[in-house]
Amino acid sequence: PDPALDDAIRAVIDGKTKPLGALGRIETLAARLARLQGTTAPRMERCTLTIFAADHGIAAEGVSAFPQEVTVQMALNFLAGGAAANVFARTLGVQLRVVDAGMAEPVDHPALVQRRMGPGTANSAVAPAMSPETLAEALASGRALGADGDADACAFGEMGIANTSAATLVIHKLSGLPIATLTGRGTGLDDAGLSAKRAVLERAAARTGALPPEAALAEYGGFEIAMMAGAMIGAAQARRAVIVDGFIATAAAMAAQAIAPGCEAAFVFAHRSDEAGHAAALEHLGARPLLDLNLRLGEGTGALLAWPLLRAAAAMMTDMASFESAGVAGKT
Amino acid sequence: PDPALDDAIRAVIDGKTKPLGALGRIETLAARLARLQGTTAPRMERCTLTIFAADHGIAAEGVSAFPQEVTVQMALNFLAGGAAANVFARTLGVQLRVVDAGMAEPVDHPALVQRRMGPGTANSAVAPAMSPETLAEALASGRALGADGDADACAFGEMGIANTSAATLVIHKLSGLPIATLTGRGTGLDDAGLSAKRAVLERAAARTGALPPEAALAEYGGFEIAMMAGAMIGAAQARRAVIVDGFIATAAAMAAQAIAPGCEAAFVFAHRSDEAGHAAALEHLGARPLLDLNLRLGEGTGALLAWPLLRAAAAMMTDMASFESAGVAGKT
Repeated sequence: PDPALDDAIRAVIDGKTKPLGALGRIETLAARLARLQGTTAPRMERCTLTIFAADHGIAAEGVSAFPQEVTVQMALNFLAGGAAANVFARTLGVQLRVVDAGMAEPVDHPALVQRRMGPGTANSAVAPAMSPETLAEALASGRALGADGDADACAFGEMGIANTSAATLVIHKLSGLPIATLTGRGTGLDDAGLSAKRAVLERAAARTGALPPEAALAEYGGFEIAMMAGAMIGAAQARRAVIVDGFIATAAAMAAQAIAPGCEAAFVFAHRSDEAGHAAALEHLGARPLLDLNLRLGEGTGALLAWPLLRAAAAMMTDMASFESAGVAGKT
Repeated sequence: PDPALDDAIRAVIDGKTKPLGALGRIETLAARLARLQGTTAPRMERCTLTIFAADHGIAAEGVSAFPQEVTVQMALNFLAGGAAANVFARTLGVQLRVVDAGMAEPVDHPALVQRRMGPGTANSAVAPAMSPETLAEALASGRALGADGDADACAFGEMGIANTSAATLVIHKLSGLPIATLTGRGTGLDDAGLSAKRAVLERAAARTGALPPEAALAEYGGFEIAMMAGAMIGAAQARRAVIVDGFIATAAAMAAQAIAPGCEAAFVFAHRSDEAGHAAALEHLGARPLLDLNLRLGEGTGALLAWPLLRAAAAMMTDMASFESAGVAGKT
């Protein structure tokens, strides 16, 4: 907390040629970005999207509408440039990379960042998803990936069949929000599939009691969720804006915040997803996302769509005229 | 209506590598843009922002927190590149032009588009704002400006001290929504100023009975509102997406739709403004805007922030892989 900086930021915003407060949430966002960078002239020129892909043992319980091989197929789609995340990233000038955090099958591709923690997690309905040692390694790999490069903002996305199940369990253990509230249709379960998923998750959750954050991640997290949590911590500690995507990214953000309190100062929640549990998770965090577009795709797509708002907010601070510089009269 | 095209559009969207409907409102937007252009491969490469500036005789009633000279001062700020609209337009790759639709004082600047309808309107609290002949000329000038160039999307903005008063009166006459619901603080009136403004507008509205759309615009509209309505018609008839900004632009959109039914097919409502009457006006039109960021600046700033969403939606149609092309498995 730096009250002098806060006052300076407020003065810059209020001096711009517009009625007081007329840019609403863009002003709030600009102030946050300025505080994060410790300046009244924040820079938002470069954004990267890192997509973490991994598989989930709990997929064996039939919790997803899509087969597990889709994780690898979609990773190849990202690498070929054909997924929604690629299209949005190209359109919005964001650089994208894909990390294998532990898919069921290894993929040999020169552009794929290899950080495999294993061939998917264990089935967390019956056993810990990963060991504490593996979790520590995933978090450390994530921290390094979040801290490298020179981006002003980092968006994180994910791909992993069954990962709304992992996210539900992680959020449940971290927040105490009920499984029933958090369980959603993921990629498109019907009513029967949703009921069955909920029963599996209730059973998985009952396997353990209250858990500290790291244990919750090790017991239930996917490799991609753990690595993303690490990356969020790494990026936040490097004072980069962390653009938080949807339900799964919010599970990672909740874990990151629990493991490294204070890193939430860097979090910009991009959107409210249509996945059932996201609104409750956001509310638990006191987060009001920028967009509400009924997205439920993941991959970082919602985070990408929020990036232009960060750019506009920073540009307002640095490029807009003041009443004084433009010779515009104030209120009568 | 072209059911075969609609089916083709739906098939393209549903074939993309994502769960059915997972891109939510981006999919709805993409389908609208595709229908507007009559193709499954809509193009959203170029967007322009045209800002119409004009003065209002009703400013003499003390309905604004800012003095009238701010209209010209802000027009000069636009021309110098220092306003919020300029900053957002540069950041988001949108070309901006400024039109003098009738400011109180003429401005001599090579980049200013001269379409002066007079030195501000008459005071509509006591007399018609403009003659029917002037209205016809303003609409015609607007149509030509909306139709020229080769943009895929046209955003329109405005500047004019007291123009929330003009917009309130136009929307009131076109929709029947009460003055009390529609009257807001504009650039920042306090409670006493808001009461006084409401009283002025009630008096102005009582000067006439029910009015057809053109008469409502002539009696109460600003030159910038009338010209913007014409521009929206011209752009829509050229099958361009019309990105509708806030409260004043919505008054123009309502008038455009009343004068040229069908042109609303081109309208994309960008955001819900914090100006009090905007939510009611949008609801009256059955419009659900894309953004909700507590903006209340005008100038087209909200429309600019929505532009990246249009680009992303069109790019989804044209650049994203299908399940078939990417070899990704479907639902089990």
